[in-house]
Parts: sequence; C-alpha cells; structure tokens
Amino acid sequence: MKKGRLFVVSGPSGVGKGTIIEQITARLGDSVMLSVSATTRDPRPGDVDGVNYYFLTEEEFVSRVSAGRFLEHAYVHGHYYGTPLDPVEAAVEAGRDVILEIDVQGAMKVKETYGEGVYIFILPPSIKILRERLSGRGTETAEVVDQRMGKAMGEIGYLDRYDYGVVNDDLDRAVEQVLDIIKAEHCRVMDGEAEQIISEYREEK
Amino acid sequence: MKKGRLFVVSGPSGVGKGTIIEQITARLGDSVMLSVSATTRDPRPGDVDGVNYYFLTEEEFVSRVSAGRFLEHAYVHGHYYGTPLDPVEAAVEAGRDVILEIDVQGAMKVKETYGEGVYIFILPPSIKILRERLSGRGTETAEVVDQRMGKAMGEIGYLDRYDYGVVNDDLDRAVEQVLDIIKAEHCRVMDGEAEQIISEYREEK
Repeated sequence: MKKGRLFVVSGPSGVGKGTIIEQITARLGDSVMLSVSATTRDPRPGDVDGVNYYFLTEEEFVSRVSAGRFLEHAYVHGHYYGTPLDPVEAAVEAGRDVILEIDVQGAMKVKETYGEGVYIFILPPSIKILRERLSGRGTETAEVVDQRMGKAMGEIGYLDRYDYGVVNDDLDRAVEQVLDIIKAEHCRVMDGEAEQIISEYREEK
Repeated sequence: MKKGRLFVVSGPSGVGKGTIIEQITARLGDSVMLSVSATTRDPRPGDVDGVNYYFLTEEEFVSRVSAGRFLEHAYVHGHYYGTPLDPVEAAVEAGRDVILEIDVQGAMKVKETYGEGVYIFILPPSIKILRERLSGRGTETAEVVDQRMGKAMGEIGYLDRYDYGVVNDDLDRAVEQVLDIIKAEHCRVMDGEAEQIISEYREEK
C-alpha cells in the first residue's frame, strides 16, 4: 500500500484556511486526518482529550520531547504546546494523509524534523481584501489593523519556503486546488521506487 | 498573468504515453501546446513544417545550437534532431503550458538547460503487462522481447530523476492524474512571489 503524506497548511489570520481545511476533510473523509496538538495546559470545559488537544503533564511532555516524539513544540505563556509525531507516523504508514494547520514558525520547525511534508500557504486575494478581513466589522482601531497587517506580511515573507501557494479568492476554487495538490502529491516519485520495479523484473527472470 | 509551465513526459515504449498526451491536449485545448521537434532530415510525404517537425538546414540547426536556442539536441543516423527553446519560451510567457514527450536521455538534457520544468514518468501497471505489450501480437521472438524489456528497465532506472510517476493501469485514471499534476503545479510558489505581495502592501501604505 502506498504511504500517506503530511500536508502542512499555513497562512495569515483572516485568510480562511480553517474553512478550506474543513471542506477538505468533509470531501476526503477517512482518507485524511487532522493533526491534533498536545499541550500541558489544563482542559477547559468542553475540551475532549485527543480531539481538541492531547492533554499531557509537563513531565510527559518534556520526556516525549527528549525522545524526539514531537515534530515541533513551543513554550507559550507558561505552557507547552506541540505536534506529536506518533499519530502522524501511524496515519502515514496506514496510507492516510495528515493535515497540520500551523503558523509559519511551527511549519519551519516541522520542515527541519520531517523531510517528506508538503507545505501549502493560503494567500488572500489582495492586500485590500486582507485589510478588510482583519478590520473586523470596522470596530478595530487603525493601529490594531496595522499591527495585524504587519504580522500578516511577516508571515507572507515565508511564502518562498512553501511548496504551493493557494489564493483564497473563491472558496470552492481554493478547495479544489488543495485537492489537486493532494492528488498530485500521491504521484510523487518516492525514494527507491525505481529499484522496486527493477527488482520485480529481476525476480521474474 | 501567470506563466505557463513545461511538462516533460517520458516512459518506456508500450506504456501508452502517446494516448495519455492526446487525451490531455483534447481536454485542455488551447491552454496547452505540444512541443514540436526540429530536424535536418528531409520532409517525407505528408510531413508538415511546424506540425510534424520544424525542418531546418544543417547550417540553421547548428547556428541555433550555438546560440543556445535548443533545450536539447542529438545527432542520429546522419541527422540532427532537437527541441527548440523559442516556441516553449513564447508559450510559457503567454501563460500556456507545454507538453514535451521525450526519451529519458533527452529529458535529462532538458533538465540541465531548463530549470523550471516538471518531469512526469509514465509507468506500466506491472512487469508482466509491460512484457505483454512489448510482445506485440506474440509475433516477436523472445530475444527481441527481452531486448525491449532490458531497454525499458534501463529507462525506468531514471524514474528517481523525475518529479512524478503515473501508473497507466487505467487510461482515464492516468489522464486524471496528469491533469491533477498540471493543476497542482500551477499553484507552485514561484521565485519572488512573496516579495511581490509585500511590495503591493508597501505601495498601499
């Protein structure tokens, strides 16, 4: 059976990546899995372990980091957060794709630890539209909007480190493009594929 | 306007790459162009200049080679054959895709001269089926079939140098996969794309 792939999806706030990923999982069903983060923060009411987060003690978290069982992790406001490697490996080995929605810093760390990922950046149709989306209902001050725009531009500066850029000017079109990318990446030539075919030939002789 | 891309398609004889390419061009119409080779051999009855080949004198051919106007060329049985760069560049600049069907040696030369191509290898469903296809109607001697199989294996040895491998076990499925690859490659992040968006932001301010 052919292995699954890890698809890492990033993009500035307000660009609609969450909606795109929802539609992708609705379309692909069980063949795709969303990566769930692990954290040491306490569960909040309604949080389900393994769905919203994997809830770990600090000891568990740190010991798994030392064992190399995280694709990336960070310490934010007194708590650890990270992407556990084991569920990704299990899914990929079982032929399922994994979608990991993560910010650019996290994505760059994943890129260092996991060579075979596919990196997709979701882009706004234009600067003007991004500004509109980040302005909320016009209730935000110009200062807050400028701050958000500056952050978004900092993120877009990482675009060149991604494999694909999908412009979310039309939701259906953006979803189709991500689906095309997922299907195309299943045709990627993998290490040792030629050798496997040639050894099949040698065995036949 | 977004530039087109060059798709280089190879695969062993008998694998059905010609039929796949026919269907792709039928599906994509004017948005895609087949690359036409140039040659110094004489036109045969029915040959149309610019359709079957570009027919050049030896002087013209050699002078264009010196000027770097070929993606690749070879001298075979007393004649030059090659892939002219100019029609590819013109199409790509005009936003059209180009499909170049070429053997592995030619594809490897193109890879050296043209960095931005997408390399697709068409694979047989199995060794057994490839052997059947190369046996013709069973009229070929075992020696000839073995020779053809050996050649095919030599070609498959280049698979790892290609970006994608498409198994032609079902024609419709193989055509869909090549179409997925073409669509996905249009989402590839290009050099300078981030800088362009960020400068749009700077101008807006």
